[in-house]
Amino acid sequence: MSTQTPRSGCTATVLLVGFEPFGDDAGNPGWDAVRLLDGAQIGGRRVVAACLPVTFGESLRQLQAHIDRLAPELVIAVGLAGGRSRLSLERVAINVDDARIPDNAGACPIDCPIVDDGPAAYFSNLPIKAMLVALRDAGIPAEVSQTAGTYVCNHVFYGLMHALRHQPGVRGGFIHVPYSPAQATRRPDAPSLPAATVAEGLRIAVQAALDTAQDLRIAAGAVH
Amino acid sequence: MSTQTPRSGCTATVLLVGFEPFGDDAGNPGWDAVRLLDGAQIGGRRVVAACLPVTFGESLRQLQAHIDRLAPELVIAVGLAGGRSRLSLERVAINVDDARIPDNAGACPIDCPIVDDGPAAYFSNLPIKAMLVALRDAGIPAEVSQTAGTYVCNHVFYGLMHALRHQPGVRGGFIHVPYSPAQATRRPDAPSLPAATVAEGLRIAVQAALDTAQDLRIAAGAVH
Amino acid sequence: MSTQTPRSGCTATVLLVGFEPFGDDAGNPGWDAVRLLDGAQIGGRRVVAACLPVTFGESLRQLQAHIDRLAPELVIAVGLAGGRSRLSLERVAINVDDARIPDNAGACPIDCPIVDDGPAAYFSNLPIKAMLVALRDAGIPAEVSQTAGTYVCNHVFYGLMHALRHQPGVRGGFIHVPYSPAQATRRPDAPSLPAATVAEGLRIAVQAALDTAQDLRIAAGAVH
Amino acid sequence: MSTQTPRSGCTATVLLVGFEPFGDDAGNPGWDAVRLLDGAQIGGRRVVAACLPVTFGESLRQLQAHIDRLAPELVIAVGLAGGRSRLSLERVAINVDDARIPDNAGACPIDCPIVDDGPAAYFSNLPIKAMLVALRDAGIPAEVSQTAGTYVCNHVFYGLMHALRHQPGVRGGFIHVPYSPAQATRRPDAPSLPAATVAEGLRIAVQAALDTAQDLRIAAGAVH
Repeated sequence: MSTQTPRSGCTATVLLVGFEPFGDDAGNPGWDAVRLLDGAQIGGRRVVAACLPVTFGESLRQLQAHIDRLAPELVIAVGLAGGRSRLSLERVAINVDDARIPDNAGACPIDCPIVDDGPAAYFSNLPIKAMLVALRDAGIPAEVSQTAGTYVCNHVFYGLMHALRHQPGVRGGFIHVPYSPAQATRRPDAPSLPAATVAEGLRIAVQAALDTAQDLRIAAGAVH
Repeated sequence: MSTQTPRSGCTATVLLVGFEPFGDDAGNPGWDAVRLLDGAQIGGRRVVAACLPVTFGESLRQLQAHIDRLAPELVIAVGLAGGRSRLSLERVAINVDDARIPDNAGACPIDCPIVDDGPAAYFSNLPIKAMLVALRDAGIPAEVSQTAGTYVCNHVFYGLMHALRHQPGVRGGFIHVPYSPAQATRRPDAPSLPAATVAEGLRIAVQAALDTAQDLRIAAGAVH
Repeated sequence: MSTQTPRSGCTATVLLVGFEPFGDDAGNPGWDAVRLLDGAQIGGRRVVAACLPVTFGESLRQLQAHIDRLAPELVIAVGLAGGRSRLSLERVAINVDDARIPDNAGACPIDCPIVDDGPAAYFSNLPIKAMLVALRDAGIPAEVSQTAGTYVCNHVFYGLMHALRHQPGVRGGFIHVPYSPAQATRRPDAPSLPAATVAEGLRIAVQAALDTAQDLRIAAGAVH
Repeated sequence: MSTQTPRSGCTATVLLVGFEPFGDDAGNPGWDAVRLLDGAQIGGRRVVAACLPVTFGESLRQLQAHIDRLAPELVIAVGLAGGRSRLSLERVAINVDDARIPDNAGACPIDCPIVDDGPAAYFSNLPIKAMLVALRDAGIPAEVSQTAGTYVCNHVFYGLMHALRHQPGVRGGFIHVPYSPAQATRRPDAPSLPAATVAEGLRIAVQAALDTAQDLRIAAGAVH
């Protein structure tokens, strides 16, 4: 993790954010994939990986500090969606915390706004349809998702988009990833993807985001 | 369907809205359940059932006409979520149409706002947690859902909440229901519930909504 | 339950067998459906419902006693398959007990034969394809299943077919049914069907079994 | 593929069998994984990979020819189970073909025995519990499966065990594997694993099979 590295003056930065483990798990496949890309060059930009705590509030304070320090042109947070089978490109973050399990600091907010008087939701401003196509073309399973849940992932996604609301040149969004194979061994029937596959997918998704000014118009919604 | 009936001056009204069939199906289990409650009394209110077309735009025009005519104190739209196993109490509607399949008029909007310059989302103002508890206590499978999709159901839900935004005394929301057993016979593995079970669930949900001024604070979120 | 009733000399009997609750559940939807049919007439036969314990060994002793007492022409055992969405017409019983959870007497056999030196499997001799078609035509979700598991249900199914191996005029088989709606309220995402729907399905399935001498040749296998 | 290679006199052989593509797919992840192991040494044995056609009948004739030529001490066939999330160690093959889709030669047998007057089923004689534990310990998602379906995979599995019935020193069985990631891109929600992960799992499974004389007694059954 090169999060201490001072920002190079000459290279634009892509900030990829992962998360600590939470619940019963020893690892977090979002962070496991993100850190494989730390220091990589994608589309001429330098990738910086950072790891956030799975805590309401503190996660957003640390995210803001990373953004302030790095002034990235693109920020993607990458969290675990245990039970999903593919990279989920999140469309929308909603202004509510509703925690089924405590966060890593023991907090369990129920039906609390993330930002008082904030809008009910923010849409990702990533070109999620173009990213979807790029992933499929590369043979990486992906989907557009209409909900990032109501736990710390949605919290960070909403907080990220709120932080970027006055920086129109900076793009941000969220990608959920499946369990790792090792995590899936302990859960009947749960899908999984290895970190190398997820990291390759993130690389392709970042490239597509950097390459796409105007998103594609292809259907990727949900009937319900 | 008693939608032609003039509104009684002395009884408050609950408007339950179902939908026409769409896709390959001959029926719509939302409407099949709703019409079983047409004319019923729940909590001293009279239920009026109405059926909307599965079309972007026109569905909302007809919904607005029903609201204008009936001045209901509670409006719940009830749509099909094929593949879900239980009554889904929707938390949030988002300001986007993204249709995987054409609506019944052949329209396929992609990533279009429902209301230009409308907010990104509206939350239901139903007491969905209290409704959830009432349904579970009655042995009817139910859940809170964090997405109503991006098709006509979400469109109507968003448009409903937009219509009610200046009527704070009127509550509105959306409930998704599973396939009917007959529909499920044609789909491998799809869950289903009979119309009588769904209608009983709707009756309980309406009663709980009418009985609950301040919603319960119980966790019913999603980790992702 | 009319299991004490002496067998009428003039009416052939259909024996429907349900099971006690097991695991964490207070009821068993197989028995809940079966007992609704106790005493009914189907195709000119009298239905007798009996409830077996969820115990390896003892379940089969009681089943044998019911068969000896009633001399039924058709025996169908009906057990819970929590997580399945429809009536599962079981094709085959295998000669092994492998219990993930203890039975109701605390036994946990692992990889033990049900009948020493018995064949590896018995096929149901019910006309499961004709039963499938009859259920679908009636709008009741149904499927042919290629495994009845390795717990008490498979144990009883295997033991039943072993008991009937020298009685070619008697047909037997097994139908798995989903959770009840009340059970499903405690399990995220689990499908369910009400007892009335299941009982109606059993009635139709019994009628089809009685009506069909030679089973239909329609595909209802599994690619895996 | 070294299937033309004459058998070395001094090294015992493990025969791993994959399959051609079938249905709509351009590849078959069973064969894609198996061929990665062709020529490898596992536990001092030489692995030979062979590819079978997805045809009833002809697949078994070719399998028999491979067995005659190689006289392997261990034979594992590896097929696709699209929709499953992990390596499935199959417990039992049943004596029936029931094809939902035509095989690659256009045949669609329905409820036909694989071997006339053959037993209703054969159990795998692999130490599937020991293999399961080895896979889980290595972080590869795996499960014991109680059904290999009724299509060509089950056909080959049954035919393999029938062929080995008089060769008690030779072990045989079947492992189902998930879609490849590329296949999963075309199917909503389908789980997948890359060929490298599957091949690593097969290597571990073969090693465990070679190392284990007497299988472990751990529960890995299904309640239904």
